[in-house]
Amino acid sequence: MTDPDDLLPEGLEDRLPTEAARLTAAMRGALDVLDSHGYDRVRPPLVEFEHSLAGRMAGVTPRRMFRFVDPASLRTLALRSDMTPQIGRIAATSLANAPRPLRLSYSGEVVTIRADQLDPARQRLQLGAELVGSDSAEAAGEVVALAVEALAAAGAQGISVDFTMPDLVDTLAANALPIASDRIENVRRELDMKDAAALREAGGEAYVPLIYAAGDFDEAIARMTELDDGGALASRIAGLRQAAQRVPADVRCTLDPAERHGFEYQSWLGFTIYAAGSRGAVGRGGTYCIRGSEERATGFSLYLDALPPAANGDAPRQTLFLPLGHDREVAARLRAIGWRTIAALAEGEDARALGCTHRLDGAEAVAVEA
Amino acid sequence: MTDPDDLLPEGLEDRLPTEAARLTAAMRGALDVLDSHGYDRVRPPLVEFEHSLAGRMAGVTPRRMFRFVDPASLRTLALRSDMTPQIGRIAATSLANAPRPLRLSYSGEVVTIRADQLDPARQRLQLGAELVGSDSAEAAGEVVALAVEALAAAGAQGISVDFTMPDLVDTLAANALPIASDRIENVRRELDMKDAAALREAGGEAYVPLIYAAGDFDEAIARMTELDDGGALASRIAGLRQAAQRVPADVRCTLDPAERHGFEYQSWLGFTIYAAGSRGAVGRGGTYCIRGSEERATGFSLYLDALPPAANGDAPRQTLFLPLGHDREVAARLRAIGWRTIAALAEGEDARALGCTHRLDGAEAVAVEA
Repeated sequence: MTDPDDLLPEGLEDRLPTEAARLTAAMRGALDVLDSHGYDRVRPPLVEFEHSLAGRMAGVTPRRMFRFVDPASLRTLALRSDMTPQIGRIAATSLANAPRPLRLSYSGEVVTIRADQLDPARQRLQLGAELVGSDSAEAAGEVVALAVEALAAAGAQGISVDFTMPDLVDTLAANALPIASDRIENVRRELDMKDAAALREAGGEAYVPLIYAAGDFDEAIARMTELDDGGALASRIAGLRQAAQRVPADVRCTLDPAERHGFEYQSWLGFTIYAAGSRGAVGRGGTYCIRGSEERATGFSLYLDALPPAANGDAPRQTLFLPLGHDREVAARLRAIGWRTIAALAEGEDARALGCTHRLDGAEAVAVEA
Repeated sequence: MTDPDDLLPEGLEDRLPTEAARLTAAMRGALDVLDSHGYDRVRPPLVEFEHSLAGRMAGVTPRRMFRFVDPASLRTLALRSDMTPQIGRIAATSLANAPRPLRLSYSGEVVTIRADQLDPARQRLQLGAELVGSDSAEAAGEVVALAVEALAAAGAQGISVDFTMPDLVDTLAANALPIASDRIENVRRELDMKDAAALREAGGEAYVPLIYAAGDFDEAIARMTELDDGGALASRIAGLRQAAQRVPADVRCTLDPAERHGFEYQSWLGFTIYAAGSRGAVGRGGTYCIRGSEERATGFSLYLDALPPAANGDAPRQTLFLPLGHDREVAARLRAIGWRTIAALAEGEDARALGCTHRLDGAEAVAVEA
């Protein structure tokens, strides 16, 4: 008999010990990498004014958030669905006078009111870094290399990076391949959909070759360079090359120049990160502009719960059963050198059933027999 | 000019780098202690069905929670205000068949809709441990000792523990000092208020001496033993002594037998923990019964953001500035041995302003001059 109160709402779940331990270790590993590169962690609150969360980035819409009225202010609050706008707010307010470039990191739970089509989860662990004050190629290189290093420290394997050029159509429309401004949105959409016929119909004939430019990074960059007759994209192409050079040689890089989905607030460079066995993307980043302060920035977010469970299972941890009446000082000394202990509360407890591999006998750890 | 969207709602705040680093280190320290004693971390979601959060513990009321309708189930959800009921739910459902005693730990943000009188914060970091399947004196001793050890690992100083006997009045009313059942609630309240006149008026004349039993643990226990003519409290007094013995000698223990406030769901033993310089209590725990499964348990929660900021400030961290064109392999090797690095993005950056103590010169770290 299941009490309905024992169930969790759709898309919200418990992480039980094995999975919680993996997630905690992954998070610590990734955060330690960010810290070692000079990124200072900040911890914004779970709940803010709706306007504050939604106002600072294009693409972060209140429709995706749980909202409710604050009895204290009578204003609408929202549960965060993305921490990036919070970091932008901190950079623009409390840390407005901190020297630039400003390196910040964060990690926390985010919740969306509805699941998306690809992922039923409504709560995710978001972890990331923002380099505030620069969106140069050097900044992009630092950030993409950092994202890969952090993800590897979180235990990801088979990492690959897919670059994109979020403002590609705007750039070309203004220069090399002019389109009427009322047609830009349609061209952008059909290009993103990779629908050549619809793209022609929308007046984007000249953009069709971009559909076929996607693929292996070096090949795609070569094709883009060919297509870029007038050199309108030259600085972007050089920037992409510089950033991709920072990615370790064993990480596969691709380029899908026209990909826009999920890059609503990025400017000249965006990237998506994948790992072997993960459900969908495990991370996303790029260059952008913080609304309000209009400061340029580069950053990324990782979603560590998208990583697959540890493939090799858990090696059984060395755990020491402490019988009733054991010497507590001996036990404390053993913990200090790395033992995990489980103390008996009553006679007759089964050390093996409690997960113990050893039992304390006097001052000695003796293996528990199978 | 402050944009109102840049403000945070009352009682919700950002933790900026210094404070966030302290909180993260405190949390890791405490969680590592819980892990070393065999407590497995679980991670329940931020949001659940309101009934599920409110139903499992007396004293956890929906009035304190932000609530909203779930578009998926059309049921009322709530943002958790306490993680303890979530751990009870996990123990009673997913881990119902795990061997007992079951040791679980947790850490996460909790939010209340209104601040309480003593503390304006509406979001707190709750961290704790639950020992499910026992509420014996041995279990209470393990849990109170663990709470103190975890708090010390989180950096707390001047720790003290105040014990209480949450079901004292019920126990005495049923045996040694009978009171009519419709008067018990009033006696309990006036005793908690320590108002001798009102207590007499409520028919609790015989309970007045309990008001004066509070104080230093050993003295208070001696007074309680004297008062306990018929021995109705003997097992409780013995249990309290056994639990208090597990507290390190440098931690001050007191007993306030009639204190009830904040112990709505505890049974024979409760305790409150304080630390030097903290706003109010930093932790609370005791023995209780999980509603629904009716399983006995012992546990505690700590609120690490109640700890005072680190007194001695931060020793400046050794941070290495990496000029443009530095050798990236050298930098990676230095990070691997513990250096924190900050890489230049452009010429002319001020290493000192960015917080660097050293600068990489070839393969060598050279102190940055003042």
